[in-house]
Amino acid sequence: MIEPLSEEERADALDALPDWDYDEARDAISRRLTFADFSEAFAFMARVALLAEKMDHHPEWSNVYNRVDITLTTHDAGGLSTRDVVMAEAIDTIAA
Amino acid sequence: MIEPLSEEERADALDALPDWDYDEARDAISRRLTFADFSEAFAFMARVALLAEKMDHHPEWSNVYNRVDITLTTHDAGGLSTRDVVMAEAIDTIAA
Repeated sequence: MIEPLSEEERADALDALPDWDYDEARDAISRRLTFADFSEAFAFMARVALLAEKMDHHPEWSNVYNRVDITLTTHDAGGLSTRDVVMAEAIDTIAA
Repeated sequence: MIEPLSEEERADALDALPDWDYDEARDAISRRLTFADFSEAFAFMARVALLAEKMDHHPEWSNVYNRVDITLTTHDAGGLSTRDVVMAEAIDTIAA
């Protein structure tokens, strides 16, 4: 069992992740990324996939051509956990 | 401009693609694929991505862990075209 974030931890995390939207109903965060084309979008997805496998933490995501929508939450925690924050920061670094 | 399928062509195509569901509202076809784990699901996605780039025809798709949902339609045709049928057959081959 993974501990969910406390309210204070979550507020701090969301402040530190300005590109991510918070979905209160799911206790999840989402980010939409737009690239030049499909090739760039999928190259990004490949890097995130390697990260996800390494972290054993996997996003819910969709792709339409140059657009990638990513949602992070931790099913085993019933909502956001430190894993999501670490992964969101790593995704931001890849996307930068 | 790419020609959409005629009604007869579409009926024949759907008969030949039993693993795909037809969405009449969008004139699109969808298939859900389930793999052993994320690694297998993303390996499949990588192969489909190469195919998509080669065909210059890109799916709408989403992935959650071992599951991949794919929707095919041709925006330039306003619905299903031969491109979708060719891609669906190629995806079935990759998935087999």
